[in-house]
This record gives sequence, C-alpha cells and structure tokens, in this order.
Amino acid sequence: MVKMIKVLGVDIGGTDIKLGIVNQKGEVLHSGTIPTRAAQGPEAMVNDVLQWREGQRGDHPEITAAGIDCAGLLDGKRRWLYSSPNLSGWENIPLGEMFESRLGLPVTLDNDANCAAWGEYNRGAGRGTKCFVCLTLGTGVGGGVVIEGRLYRGSQGLAGEVGHQVILAGGPRCGCGSRGCLEALIGADAIIKRTRDILAEGKASVLGERDDFTVRDIASAAREGDGAAVRSLGETGEFLGIGLANIVHLFNPEVIAVGGGVAGAGDFILGPARESLRKHLMGEVLSGIPVVPAQLGNRASLVGASFLALEKIKTEG
Amino acid sequence: MVKMIKVLGVDIGGTDIKLGIVNQKGEVLHSGTIPTRAAQGPEAMVNDVLQWREGQRGDHPEITAAGIDCAGLLDGKRRWLYSSPNLSGWENIPLGEMFESRLGLPVTLDNDANCAAWGEYNRGAGRGTKCFVCLTLGTGVGGGVVIEGRLYRGSQGLAGEVGHQVILAGGPRCGCGSRGCLEALIGADAIIKRTRDILAEGKASVLGERDDFTVRDIASAAREGDGAAVRSLGETGEFLGIGLANIVHLFNPEVIAVGGGVAGAGDFILGPARESLRKHLMGEVLSGIPVVPAQLGNRASLVGASFLALEKIKTEG
Repeated sequence: MVKMIKVLGVDIGGTDIKLGIVNQKGEVLHSGTIPTRAAQGPEAMVNDVLQWREGQRGDHPEITAAGIDCAGLLDGKRRWLYSSPNLSGWENIPLGEMFESRLGLPVTLDNDANCAAWGEYNRGAGRGTKCFVCLTLGTGVGGGVVIEGRLYRGSQGLAGEVGHQVILAGGPRCGCGSRGCLEALIGADAIIKRTRDILAEGKASVLGERDDFTVRDIASAAREGDGAAVRSLGETGEFLGIGLANIVHLFNPEVIAVGGGVAGAGDFILGPARESLRKHLMGEVLSGIPVVPAQLGNRASLVGASFLALEKIKTEG
Repeated sequence: MVKMIKVLGVDIGGTDIKLGIVNQKGEVLHSGTIPTRAAQGPEAMVNDVLQWREGQRGDHPEITAAGIDCAGLLDGKRRWLYSSPNLSGWENIPLGEMFESRLGLPVTLDNDANCAAWGEYNRGAGRGTKCFVCLTLGTGVGGGVVIEGRLYRGSQGLAGEVGHQVILAGGPRCGCGSRGCLEALIGADAIIKRTRDILAEGKASVLGERDDFTVRDIASAAREGDGAAVRSLGETGEFLGIGLANIVHLFNPEVIAVGGGVAGAGDFILGPARESLRKHLMGEVLSGIPVVPAQLGNRASLVGASFLALEKIKTEG
C-alpha cells in the first residue's frame, strides 16, 4: 500500500484563517477556521495555527509539510512577507521561516492569489493548460499566472499583480497609492460606490431602501431584475473586460479563470466583461480565449498552498 | 578549426527589408537593404530576398538557416502571419514555410518586437537576466518577453503585445480598433498630434514654423531647449511610465529595455517615464527594476531573428 501523504494548508485572510488537512490529490480531508488576530503579531498567529494542528493530531498524526498563503506583497521564493492589507503593521517578516521553525516541517509561503491560481491549475479551471491566468475578485483584485506547469513569479516573486495594472490613467485613487488601477475600478468598494452613484441619480432600486449593502446584496438584487444593480455590475464588467484584454495581450493565455467573492455575481459581471474584452482585442484571432468561472470557490487558495507544500516535498526529496 | 556557422537575417519593415549575414555570435558580417514591395505579394518578396542572398554567395557560400521577422500578428511556432500593418492585404499566410521551401534552408519567423527582445537578450541590454522585457517604440509600440532564457510566446504566439494594453479606458482610438491603447498614446503619430495640440495653444516653438515634422525633429527641438517639444515628450513619457508599471505588475521583470526610433528621444521621454513608473507602482520594493535604453539600435530585430535561426539549427540537430 502506498502511504498517503498529508499536508497542512493555511490560508490567512483578513478576518479568519482557513486551515485544512489536505492529501496528495489536493483533497481537503478536514478543515476549520480560527480568527485572524493580526494585532497580536506573527508569533501569536503561529501559535494559533500550531494549536489547531495539535487538535487534529489524533486523526492525522503525520503531516509532512505546510503551505501558507496570505494576501499582499510576498516573495514566495524567499518566503518573505513585505506587507499585507490584512495584516496591518506587519512589514518585512520572514513569515515562512517563522512557521517552519515552530512547526518543524518544510513550509511554503505565497500570495493568496498565486495560490488560488495554483489550486485552479491543479484541480480546477486551469487543468491541462500550458498558460493559465486566474483572477481573484474581492475587496482586492489579485491574480496568478501558471506557465508550462509552473507558477510564474518573476524576478522578485511579485508577478501577476493584475489588480494594480492601470487601465484608466488619472482615474480613481487605489488603496496602493496609484490611480486608475483595475482594483480601484472593480474591487468590492468600487462596486458599492458605483451602485451608490447610480442610486443617487434617483433610480428606483431595492437597494435604495437600505443604509448599507454588500456586493452580494447587489448581486441578489440583480438576480431579481433590479435595474440599478444590473447596471452597476455591467459597468464593473466593462472595466474587468479591459483588464482581461490587457492580460490577453501580455500573456496570451490559453484560459482565464475568474474567482473570488465578487465573481459570485456571475454573468451579471462576466457577460459584460466578455463583451468588453472582445471590443478591446487587437485581432479576431485572440477572441477565442475562454474566460471561465473558477471552480474551487473559497478553498482555491488553501488547496493551492497545499499543492505548493506537496511540490516542495517532492522537489526536496 | 571550428567551422563558423552563418545564417541569413531578414527584417521586413514597412519601406525596407534589412538583410544580414550573421555569424553564430550574432555578429552581422555583411548587411544590406532592399525595398519592401508589399503590393507585389509574398512570392515576389521571397524572390527579392533570394536574389540578395545570391549576390552574397561569393563571399558567404554556406548559409545554414534563415531568420525572418516582420511587424504584426504572427505565430512564431506555426511560422504563420495573421496580418501586418506593413504588408497591406497580406492575411493568413504561411510565410515561414514559403521562405523555407524556396531557400531550401530551415527558416524561423517571428514578430519584429519579439526578435528585438531576443536580440537584446542575447547581445544587448537583457544579457544575463532571467526575466526581461523589451519595448520597441516607433510608429507602432511592440514588446517581447524573455523568461528563463526563452522567448515567451503564450498559447498562440501572440504574447508581449505591450502596445495594445489599454491604459486609458475610453481614450483615443488606436489603429487596432480599440481605444486608449499605449500605442494610441505614445506611438509616433500620437506624439506628433500631442505636439501639434501644444503648438495650437499658441506656445512659441521652432516646430511652429514648419508644416510637417517627425518625432526626430521634436527630439532635436527638445535638445535645443524648445519648451513645447520638451513638454510633448514629457507627457509621452508619463504615459509610457504607466505602461511600464503595468509590465512590472504583471511580469515583475529583472530589467526593462526601451528601444526603437522614438526611444532616440532619450531622457526627454525616459526621464519622465521613470518618474511616472515610480508613481504608479504598488510598492516601494518594485521601484528598483531598471528601465534602460536598448543597445542594438535598428539592428535589434535582425540580430534577434538570426539568433532564433541559430537556435533552430541547434535544436533540430
């Protein structure tokens, strides 16, 4: 009998850390979440993760490696965290090393969007492709690129930052300090602001009766035929299409997948995005590249981080 | 004595075809130009090139392969020309095969900007890098990407089209049919239009006395301290910087080189471009990526095409 290898996946989000015991096929055997207590600092976080792992020792005594991921500027090769929007005040931290020395296991660390792309490549929408780009739409807009079976990282591990391509020079201010980034136009906050602006024009909408709403609420309203919601998501899709056209012109991928919470709005965004993409392509020959929904939902990063850990074991023998 | 291998390089431009006999070090031993008679069709062009090659047979009896390049949408792997702005009416032509059957030699075919990048990687500004992007600024704005020692082509051979990334949604119409492409903002025509617009504001300029001028004239005027010319090139540089920032965020290259005729304006464009690049980056850590002038001048594509041919010989034994 072949021994089943298991790894620990750790997906550090802004509010929660998702954890999973994952086998070599990328199947999540057991999963859980713990709160992200960023204010307590990295040591405390490593302790929290260790404690969760201890709780699983009965069922899963042997773990061979761990794959960590987190939003932000990260160098996967050096396992170095430059900064993260989810981990306020954490800067220039050897987070991979910290986890490794406490867990006593080989540890990988990478960007959450890179891991989502790697997960989708291995078990989702990118399977079997030679050049694959995966976008993650949420509060932030992230991306990951897989070229010939390897996560493409560039010279500093910072490639694939599709959310910070400028598509509207001089446009709205982005959280990163620049202007007119894709994220500043299609991130969750931008979608909510766009919807508010449409409502402010006096358009009747179920959303107009509420003080506060989320992108999920906008998507629900759109599904019920709410005109303001449909228009807001459609305009969002038009900008997404421009970002996709730029990705096509630079990477000429085989498939592009779109995931993340905002992608839950489905064809209300993706439909107009595909139309806009087509309009912004330099040649008909490029128009056949499929833009498809991601398949792994909110587990994509966890699964991808686990696959990176599995790969590390293989590579390092 | 090791036998010196020689190849024929053929760089098909809008007015001229540059030809060269190139050795295995990428040194151009002999070069010449013939007019591009696109209206006569591909067969006639192949004949013209053959005739030039025959003229060199005395000095260079043995040629082992040929590397062809040309502007436009090309698939290097299939050696297929979809279309070219320089070759009006040529569409969907197996140009590589046509040259190969008539020359009786292994032939490579690729995009001129890809070849420029490949030339700069092998003998110019990109030597020794693991991830290199080269922009070619002229009437068109092209690009090529070299990753880990290989020209990156993507799924259809159409990657690296940096000139057709949209950086100003809804911006000026581009020759490709889209709007707000980098090429529509920093291509030669856009620079001339920008300068005319500045002159129309009534700004005194040596260029105001002329009916017609080129980017080279604008650069000369700038070198003489002409305010309108300096401003026009500066504004061009600001848009270039945004395009560079997008390249940094997507590819995270080690070095970016900028060549082509328009790059002859030097720091009047590159200075403001570097400043604008810095302003549009999402993190300080990305600001160290050097943006340098290309080194091979107008021979970059010819040299790169020749290196592709040399590589084909090696690969195919």
